Amino acid sequence: MAAEHSPSDGPHARIVFQPSGRAGTVPLGTSLLAAARSLGVGLESICGGQQTCGKCLVYVEAGSFPKFNLTSDPAHLSPPTAHEQRFRERRGLPETARLACAAQIRGDLLITVPPESQAQKQVILKAATERPLEIDPAIRLYYVRLAPPQAGERSDQERVAAELAARFGLTGVTWDYPALQALPTALRAGQGALTVTVWQGREIIRIQPGYHESPLGLAVDIGTTTLAAYLCDLRSGALLATASAMNPQVTYGDDIMARISYATEQPAGLAQLQQRVVTAIHDLAQQATAEVGRAAEEVVDVVLVGNSVMHHLVLGLDPAPLGALPFVPVAGGPVDLRAAELGLALNPGARVHVLPLEGGFVGADNVGVLLAEEPHRRAELSLILDVGTNGELVLGNRERLLCTSAATGPAFEGAQITHGMRAAPGAIERVRLDPETLAVRVKVIGQDLWSDALPPEALQARGVCGSGILEAVAELLTAGLLEPNGRFSARRETPRLIKYHGKAAFVLAEAAQSATGAPIVITQSDVRAIQLAKAALYVGAQFLMREFGVQSVDRIVLAGAFGSVLDAQRAMAIGMLPPCDSQQVFSVGNAAGDGARIALLSCAKRREAAELARRVEHLTPSLEGEFQRAFVAALPFPEPEPL
Amino acid sequence: MAAEHSPSDGPHARIVFQPSGRAGTVPLGTSLLAAARSLGVGLESICGGQQTCGKCLVYVEAGSFPKFNLTSDPAHLSPPTAHEQRFRERRGLPETARLACAAQIRGDLLITVPPESQAQKQVILKAATERPLEIDPAIRLYYVRLAPPQAGERSDQERVAAELAARFGLTGVTWDYPALQALPTALRAGQGALTVTVWQGREIIRIQPGYHESPLGLAVDIGTTTLAAYLCDLRSGALLATASAMNPQVTYGDDIMARISYATEQPAGLAQLQQRVVTAIHDLAQQATAEVGRAAEEVVDVVLVGNSVMHHLVLGLDPAPLGALPFVPVAGGPVDLRAAELGLALNPGARVHVLPLEGGFVGADNVGVLLAEEPHRRAELSLILDVGTNGELVLGNRERLLCTSAATGPAFEGAQITHGMRAAPGAIERVRLDPETLAVRVKVIGQDLWSDALPPEALQARGVCGSGILEAVAELLTAGLLEPNGRFSARRETPRLIKYHGKAAFVLAEAAQSATGAPIVITQSDVRAIQLAKAALYVGAQFLMREFGVQSVDRIVLAGAFGSVLDAQRAMAIGMLPPCDSQQVFSVGNAAGDGARIALLSCAKRREAAELARRVEHLTPSLEGEFQRAFVAALPFPEPEPL
Repeated sequence: MAAEHSPSDGPHARIVFQPSGRAGTVPLGTSLLAAARSLGVGLESICGGQQTCGKCLVYVEAGSFPKFNLTSDPAHLSPPTAHEQRFRERRGLPETARLACAAQIRGDLLITVPPESQAQKQVILKAATERPLEIDPAIRLYYVRLAPPQAGERSDQERVAAELAARFGLTGVTWDYPALQALPTALRAGQGALTVTVWQGREIIRIQPGYHESPLGLAVDIGTTTLAAYLCDLRSGALLATASAMNPQVTYGDDIMARISYATEQPAGLAQLQQRVVTAIHDLAQQATAEVGRAAEEVVDVVLVGNSVMHHLVLGLDPAPLGALPFVPVAGGPVDLRAAELGLALNPGARVHVLPLEGGFVGADNVGVLLAEEPHRRAELSLILDVGTNGELVLGNRERLLCTSAATGPAFEGAQITHGMRAAPGAIERVRLDPETLAVRVKVIGQDLWSDALPPEALQARGVCGSGILEAVAELLTAGLLEPNGRFSARRETPRLIKYHGKAAFVLAEAAQSATGAPIVITQSDVRAIQLAKAALYVGAQFLMREFGVQSVDRIVLAGAFGSVLDAQRAMAIGMLPPCDSQQVFSVGNAAGDGARIALLSCAKRREAAELARRVEHLTPSLEGEFQRAFVAALPFPEPEPL
Repeated sequence: MAAEHSPSDGPHARIVFQPSGRAGTVPLGTSLLAAARSLGVGLESICGGQQTCGKCLVYVEAGSFPKFNLTSDPAHLSPPTAHEQRFRERRGLPETARLACAAQIRGDLLITVPPESQAQKQVILKAATERPLEIDPAIRLYYVRLAPPQAGERSDQERVAAELAARFGLTGVTWDYPALQALPTALRAGQGALTVTVWQGREIIRIQPGYHESPLGLAVDIGTTTLAAYLCDLRSGALLATASAMNPQVTYGDDIMARISYATEQPAGLAQLQQRVVTAIHDLAQQATAEVGRAAEEVVDVVLVGNSVMHHLVLGLDPAPLGALPFVPVAGGPVDLRAAELGLALNPGARVHVLPLEGGFVGADNVGVLLAEEPHRRAELSLILDVGTNGELVLGNRERLLCTSAATGPAFEGAQITHGMRAAPGAIERVRLDPETLAVRVKVIGQDLWSDALPPEALQARGVCGSGILEAVAELLTAGLLEPNGRFSARRETPRLIKYHGKAAFVLAEAAQSATGAPIVITQSDVRAIQLAKAALYVGAQFLMREFGVQSVDRIVLAGAFGSVLDAQRAMAIGMLPPCDSQQVFSVGNAAGDGARIALLSCAKRREAAELARRVEHLTPSLEGEFQRAFVAALPFPEPEPL
């Protein structure tokens, strides 16, 4: 990779860049930035060498380095410019800090490129395992300065193109119409200084006056019941803010079949459902950007994931084929379009990328899960349960991937549960019941302490979310307050077992502990909803395992509305999971959302998603007797064991 | 170019295709269509070999052909299919007519590909010289048939893509959002049969149920005063209809400087001007499509040309930089966008291509003139005058091209002339005045006979267009009714010389000959307008000739609002043209519109336009004294000579 020059070209110096170790000789007088480029060292630069952006900051080492066969000295570079000196003072940097675009080579050098200056940045994604991701966003910014136009010069449009070609080697770029329209105003406002936003290295989608460096992107997981949005800095990869909300389509039907009916049977039903979810995404963008003092209008890239029905509805595609055999979607490959085409009012040039579908109801959200969890890179056999209103299951390893879906209903998302709510502040997310005393402890999202460490009036419980419901059921079962058939037991007495609107119920938080002033309970029908949901997941997992020809799995990943607090033992206690070492059960929170964020930050991962979607085998359990029998057989809870 | 197979592949036959002469051997059993493709013979096929479109019609020759060293026999092909027989009967074709996709090779053959089946079609464009154009449109249609979906199949989107790849070798195509949205409805309506409209071989912009073969395109010349639209069949290249209208922006200012003022000084002025012209283009599309029983919604490709100001206004680009030194436009390169982005309601997937600008006010319309007239392919020196409200001049040959603009005003378009009108039915387009008797004869557009062959009441004159005005001035001058200084002469008497609202005027048509019931006249101020216009053109031509270093030119081409009837001698009589053999003065009508039509039919010509725009040197006459003096000196008419 070293670009060697023959000595006949004139005096040269030997340069080594760390940590890449790329090395070569370059003519004296070359800038460090040019040397880095010629040696293939990825060094960031938004301004293209105008000493404006400070992104090409490097450190020069001093001393003899036998390993590299050179003696490096800060004096082997041209003296710092006034720009560099101001930059160093402002940031409190040592004298060894240099801007690569300004410093010219006068002798041998060992240069260290700090992580923040590397063009191929890595971000660490919080997931089951914290993995580094090399960011490779679809959006990049370029800073150019145009001199005032001279008579006989070509148009401003062509002058910008010429600067992009000369400074950044970007050729053949086309202009989005809104960017072209914005050009004259931006040129005047910036007095010739412009930041150009380029999509996929080929389309100019935005023109801003002056210097900018932090383009915004939004990853959105469109769940049947819940929307989750992640606002990212597309240059650094940093997660800036998150926001979530109910899917407003819930008003038109609780599950995917009800949404399909509404979209296909009501006049303009599809347009209405699309518009509602698009408006909600816009609201999330506003909320997340406001949190960091930015505006939704600054969002230039969006990645959307969702199950197949949510995917079709947000794209305004007729979901009817998803509601009937053979369940073949209208669009299954990745979709790129303009946010404006969806009626999504972000930046006028903003793009939207929708991840592909796997098959049937197993959609782009599950492709996101695969990107985040990477079962296809493991030798061990993983079972991934993404639990939402529509459950999605993947079983596989690096040899083979199978997927299917399970109609779990919205119970695990806290919907259609008496006091259910989303995993948001105020939700009871953890529940403990002493099997001896039947004393109850709960933990509420947004509060650090468990209820037994707080005076009753300090507990701000407003409801119970998916993980709280599941833990409550597991604890009730272990304490003998629930029979395996799902009925509250008359065997033990506690004042917490009450009648609630005439039905048996268990009090998770007393009126005094509740922000609503009324007790928060889990009722007999809530328990039934959990039974149906866990049976659907269990049978789905059994179905995939039978197809794969295995009796157990090496690891289980629980993703979805539970957040990341779900307790593996308790999930096993209610009979939701197939046999597996409980040490190998992981709760990863919203993996679909993590996958959306990965795709937002990396075009390479978007390509990988397209391959994965084609590779995973989608299976539909036959709707005949066997499946029904297995489902009914899975409804009871297992016999309780101590937790 | 011959694809030879080794005899070891099994039995082969020798095939020759006429008129290309491409030849080779192919295995027996190959279809003629596959053989043509393997030998590089461009044979049209919309349906990709499904015997549906009939576009691959060829003729098989019978007899011995020593020149090709083979004996061809219709029996060397598989018998006609039932499809082929029905097709032949319906069209009354001989038995030697075969569909190349259906006929399989059983022996040596000489095949003739008729012009209509050749993939690279030629159309003959009416221009100064009738030239053939090889069409190469941005839009192509592909017919596919999908079987009903099966369980486990990928999406309809991906099934269409697979068919395009398998039948037509089209890979990596992306989907425009409106096309994707239309897919499920079209699939149902077409029962799996679809016509796919593809732009530039890479984007699906429309999905139609069933079979279609005639995509519509619209070329529009946006003049300052007049809009001219040409509706074309993008497959055959045929001109289907034309339509023209006043540019509705005229209400906001007569010339380009007035339009710039309005756009930049009025609140929302730019948006208003854009919207008015876009609406007018839509109306022209409706008018032209209705004429051939089609709908504006069927138009999928549009090419726009216009001078730099018209270009900026239709694109909604701030024209302010065009109104002040150094006159550098905002956008000068070719622009591709979606019609919907302009608010132009044609097909939802329709594309718009705007030709590039040359420089200053010399715009995309003049690039169109260059495409149509091709001065850059000639050794002789051409002077091209495109006469509209803004005159554009080109001087050059295959070595060098110069251009400039001249503020002619709208007189030659019949605007701001007492009884002026566009070159439309009812306009007096030709005028003859007997120098002895002073008898007047006129010819009106839409009528075949001159006025002296018609009873007065049969003449349906409504006004006078540019060529009529110019001829009237030339004739008045020659007859001595006008002085060289432009004043009506008192030397000769005729009842046609009258006072009109107190000013001297000449009657071109008596009240009895007029459809308006009032006489149609040319007034003293009309003559002044012609003087200003012709002086501007003359001085512009002189300026280019001086820069080029020549005293005369080899040929002169007059383009623009005159239509194609303008008489060279009369144009020279009024002193509009520099020295040139009058046999070498050509009147070509709307060459800018012809150029727009060429670009509509050929992507190769769009690329050529981009190169030409960069190559032509744009010159701005200095606004100092010399130019002013030359202009004043050019105002008088030449001394009259007999015509």
